[in-house]
Amino acid sequence: MGGDKAPQAIVEGARDALAEYAHIERLYLVGDEATVKAEVDRLGFRDRRLEIVHSTEVIGMGESPVQAVRKKKDSSLTVAVDLVKRGDCQAIMSAGNTGAAVAASTIKLRNLRGVDRAGIASPLPNEHGPCNIVDAGANVDAKPVHLLQYAIMGAVYARHVQGKENPVVGLMCNGEEEGKGTDFTREVFELLKASHLNFRGNVEGHDLFETKLDVVVCDGFTGNVVLKSCEATAKITMKWLKQEIYKSPIRKFGAMLAKGAFLAAKERGSYETYGGSPLLGVNGICIIAHGSSSPRAAKNAIRVAAEAVRHHVNPHIEEEIQRAEALSGLAQ
Amino acid sequence: MGGDKAPQAIVEGARDALAEYAHIERLYLVGDEATVKAEVDRLGFRDRRLEIVHSTEVIGMGESPVQAVRKKKDSSLTVAVDLVKRGDCQAIMSAGNTGAAVAASTIKLRNLRGVDRAGIASPLPNEHGPCNIVDAGANVDAKPVHLLQYAIMGAVYARHVQGKENPVVGLMCNGEEEGKGTDFTREVFELLKASHLNFRGNVEGHDLFETKLDVVVCDGFTGNVVLKSCEATAKITMKWLKQEIYKSPIRKFGAMLAKGAFLAAKERGSYETYGGSPLLGVNGICIIAHGSSSPRAAKNAIRVAAEAVRHHVNPHIEEEIQRAEALSGLAQ
Repeated sequence: MGGDKAPQAIVEGARDALAEYAHIERLYLVGDEATVKAEVDRLGFRDRRLEIVHSTEVIGMGESPVQAVRKKKDSSLTVAVDLVKRGDCQAIMSAGNTGAAVAASTIKLRNLRGVDRAGIASPLPNEHGPCNIVDAGANVDAKPVHLLQYAIMGAVYARHVQGKENPVVGLMCNGEEEGKGTDFTREVFELLKASHLNFRGNVEGHDLFETKLDVVVCDGFTGNVVLKSCEATAKITMKWLKQEIYKSPIRKFGAMLAKGAFLAAKERGSYETYGGSPLLGVNGICIIAHGSSSPRAAKNAIRVAAEAVRHHVNPHIEEEIQRAEALSGLAQ
Repeated sequence: MGGDKAPQAIVEGARDALAEYAHIERLYLVGDEATVKAEVDRLGFRDRRLEIVHSTEVIGMGESPVQAVRKKKDSSLTVAVDLVKRGDCQAIMSAGNTGAAVAASTIKLRNLRGVDRAGIASPLPNEHGPCNIVDAGANVDAKPVHLLQYAIMGAVYARHVQGKENPVVGLMCNGEEEGKGTDFTREVFELLKASHLNFRGNVEGHDLFETKLDVVVCDGFTGNVVLKSCEATAKITMKWLKQEIYKSPIRKFGAMLAKGAFLAAKERGSYETYGGSPLLGVNGICIIAHGSSSPRAAKNAIRVAAEAVRHHVNPHIEEEIQRAEALSGLAQ
């Protein structure tokens, strides 16, 4: 029930995901049964792996996350997380209130062994493959050790789900030189430098799309602000170009001839291609989809959820966190 | 001597500024005399208002700001700031090492009465006119009261130099709702709410280009990261579009017909139009230009410097800071 286009876009995405991914064993649609059923019927969506789970409440986009999760015990989100908690399913996907998804997962599923704080890994379309920004907003008051853990978890995700050999990790900063940044980032720098990760050092906004980077760590405040700013810039750039094109018939005709390029470039920069951002560090898979997810974005978020399960992201995270702890123990 | 295209682009920008702005009484070009002279001659740049001031050193882009300013007492930057300090001129413009420009101005000129920390106001091309991000990176370890002062100074600049009636101030945050953000931003929120400013509340990346906003305050770390991320996104968006266009002759032909739209859109989003970011809060005018400033960007940065002087930005800042102090004194 969460997201700007729910349940239509979500149900349609679910249909396409089941059609495309044979390895998904079961898919639960959690929400108001009548509403979801009507949508399923409208689409002629029939699949023996599909099951509708009724819930009576919805957490709104503007609601205070922790309070909403505590109060609305029968919201589509909390009921879905309960399915994971009970072991009925292995992953959830939500396009609703991000804070609530983080709160519900953290409260109900708890963190993985050794993980202090969960972080959202949001993929940006870098020229060398997805560049995961961790944390994209789960934890705004982060401590340096949280960012070390984000780096470890992001690298596991990049390696095991995205197929990156030796993931390159960067630290978001206001300059590339060592010594740049705040007291906070300089402390994180030392932790990353001492770790077993493939740490590239400080990175800047300029590096996000063209430098080979698989994971960029930052506190959740910075990550969230950066991601929204990037999204806004891409949107306004295309909007202004369109406005200028519409100023003359010749330009419009030209743009029509080049239409394929506009579509391809849009596709390349679109979050829909990646579909979802995993909340790394909780004991279960939770994929956070964009609030305005289209059917395609929803389908890809479901794919991401299934892949995270299939590639055993969480056992790998526990292993790597333990390894890092052992290493830092040896170093002391 | 500072900036990627110095001294060529700077000298050319200076020539165009003098040609266009009759109200500039004198313009000093500070740098290696032979090099600057050669450039002036090459351009046939002759103007009785022009004077070359010799300096023997240059501060590099990667140098540690405070150390460089202390050590290189005859760098083009420090000599230029000394001209302001001695009262020989009222404003400096630099496209070189930003940190060094901030350090030299702060150390030599000192802050205005009542100002604790200077902040860089970087204009983003918002649809309602320039939206000034303060601080864009002068002070990465900011305190809440610094952001209140940035808001006051940014509003003065927006009103007196950019002609905004009742400047709208926003606080950069990871969500719009009151209560979002970190302990730090929540404290700033209260200060802004209690002030006499036209405070709109928390704003997100999504608001930067389309919401009417004249000033957005944040700590220098966040501001710097956001601005570089926006710049990188705009660049990559156009790069990918171009790459897709070059994939077929039809697309190329179409794009050629629509070329005017590409140029106009680029112009609209370009930092060159604004040309420079004032360092607000120091006792003198210091305009920081983009490191890769073109002649046009350099010319516009010189224009901004002259306008800041002409509109008495600094006396207005002192007045407004005093007014805010009186108000908060009354409130206590």
